[in-house]
Amino acid sequence: MKEVVAGIDIGGTNTVFGLVDRDGNILADGNIKTSGHPEVEGFVSVLISSIKNLSSGFSDLTISGIGIGAPNANYHKGTIELATNLAWKGIIPFTSLVSKEMDLPCFITNDANAAAMGEMIFGAAKNVRDFIILTLGTGVGSGIVTNGELVYGHTGFAGEIGHTIIIPGGRSCGCGRQGCLETYTSASGLVRTVLYMLSEMKEPSLLREIAPSKLNAKLITDAAKKSDPVAMEAFDYTAEMLAFGIINAIVFSSPEAVYLFGGLANAGDLLFEPVRKYVDRDIMAVFRGTVKILPSGIPENNAAVLGAAALAWKELKK
Amino acid sequence: MKEVVAGIDIGGTNTVFGLVDRDGNILADGNIKTSGHPEVEGFVSVLISSIKNLSSGFSDLTISGIGIGAPNANYHKGTIELATNLAWKGIIPFTSLVSKEMDLPCFITNDANAAAMGEMIFGAAKNVRDFIILTLGTGVGSGIVTNGELVYGHTGFAGEIGHTIIIPGGRSCGCGRQGCLETYTSASGLVRTVLYMLSEMKEPSLLREIAPSKLNAKLITDAAKKSDPVAMEAFDYTAEMLAFGIINAIVFSSPEAVYLFGGLANAGDLLFEPVRKYVDRDIMAVFRGTVKILPSGIPENNAAVLGAAALAWKELKK
Repeated sequence: MKEVVAGIDIGGTNTVFGLVDRDGNILADGNIKTSGHPEVEGFVSVLISSIKNLSSGFSDLTISGIGIGAPNANYHKGTIELATNLAWKGIIPFTSLVSKEMDLPCFITNDANAAAMGEMIFGAAKNVRDFIILTLGTGVGSGIVTNGELVYGHTGFAGEIGHTIIIPGGRSCGCGRQGCLETYTSASGLVRTVLYMLSEMKEPSLLREIAPSKLNAKLITDAAKKSDPVAMEAFDYTAEMLAFGIINAIVFSSPEAVYLFGGLANAGDLLFEPVRKYVDRDIMAVFRGTVKILPSGIPENNAAVLGAAALAWKELKK
Repeated sequence: MKEVVAGIDIGGTNTVFGLVDRDGNILADGNIKTSGHPEVEGFVSVLISSIKNLSSGFSDLTISGIGIGAPNANYHKGTIELATNLAWKGIIPFTSLVSKEMDLPCFITNDANAAAMGEMIFGAAKNVRDFIILTLGTGVGSGIVTNGELVYGHTGFAGEIGHTIIIPGGRSCGCGRQGCLETYTSASGLVRTVLYMLSEMKEPSLLREIAPSKLNAKLITDAAKKSDPVAMEAFDYTAEMLAFGIINAIVFSSPEAVYLFGGLANAGDLLFEPVRKYVDRDIMAVFRGTVKILPSGIPENNAAVLGAAALAWKELKK
């Protein structure tokens, strides 16, 4: 019998899942709508049936555990708590509901922590005991690994580097405060930066031809690749802010590597080169030259399922 | 035979040491000058002789290990590296030198990490798996514990929360950068704040009668306790800055408690009350109410030796 785990990533709209072996091969995968299920019990029932169907296509497969990445997931309690992007309100005992449908060890954490697990088990951080991953998407998530273990903290919600305040009194943030790292270095932060640059810069720019409501990180990246001065200036500023967040994280846990993942990280050297330059310029001397700033080693389209599966494999090994 | 460890704290001027049992009782202690020894080998020789002499007074004592707290100590390598307050230059293989004189397991870390160990093994954090200790002295040191383990990081120098930049372009710091937490919340940071307040405030103040070169945290604390308006305003500002550093640390590791130790922490409610108020006001919502801000549970005069001894006990248990 071949042993696999089920990796599940719950998003606001879609939920994707896959059967993943120890080496990170996805043997089969599928997806269902998250948003079509006002009651969480109904959702879990459909989800687990779908996974059972997926595995029934194999004669020699045994599922040993289930790993789940979800917004506002609490690793310690197995819950999803007060998730604004999901229909289920309050505190949902998610792993208990899953175990009722399928009697297997079940683990849950938030998507950025799952990304860290994916990096550690299947990705670029296989032999790295101290690292940080930053997920630069709509928001900025983070997963922190020290001594080879993910940092969940007392509450289970540790690793919110995106909500480090880097500019006191700075940009207003969805968290209700001001100046958080994610207001500058998320995809939407980059759009805010471009709009500001357009107000301040006189240089011609392709971005002046795009309605603000249509602006996104992809269009800005494309413009920067064509040497558009506003887009390039926006990337440089974003990189400086990101470097600032990274150097404040480095004094905390002194990682060997910081991995950047998703959205903005896809801009490649446009982002990585200035980030490395500003980290090197502004880092505390004792840490200079000790930290690699690297792209994630997990393909973006499989990252969510692999991260959730990695959580299950890591826990089953304990 | 009663089992003890030797705890050693190396300071710029004095080195203190003690024989400490599993319960944190100091059975005997002593001290030697650090500064009288230009060569580290000579210093280690005198230090170890002194410890042997100390133990020779007991007929039933066996020393099982040695723990050392020292500036710029690297836990991973057993070294003291580029310590500006010590006479020995370069990278000193300190634990190797000690082991040559006394063939016992020997461990070293910096003083703030040793303070965290002391808190975890003998102090207020005995059953706390996730906490941070901030030592508010001439500088601001920190020790971070996650999952019940001290965070040393890839370099061994993790836990420099005092060098989190909280005000970009702010006060110049001894580390060569600007706006670090320690420039606002160390004892010398409090003095800087008072001098600034004296320049801005018109209220009468006892502190106007003291030459700036004589101002220190103790005098400012005494004035604040007499409701001196400048001293009180300075404490309030210091507390706000410290709260800011603490809330940025909380998003990182989500501790159950933050312990404040030394210097400024001795001001008691003058510091703790406004720190708690500002943390509660400015913390990210998901962490509100989850973190206790507490005084250290270790008496200050024994803290250095107990911290170093705790390191040895913790390592011997591994």
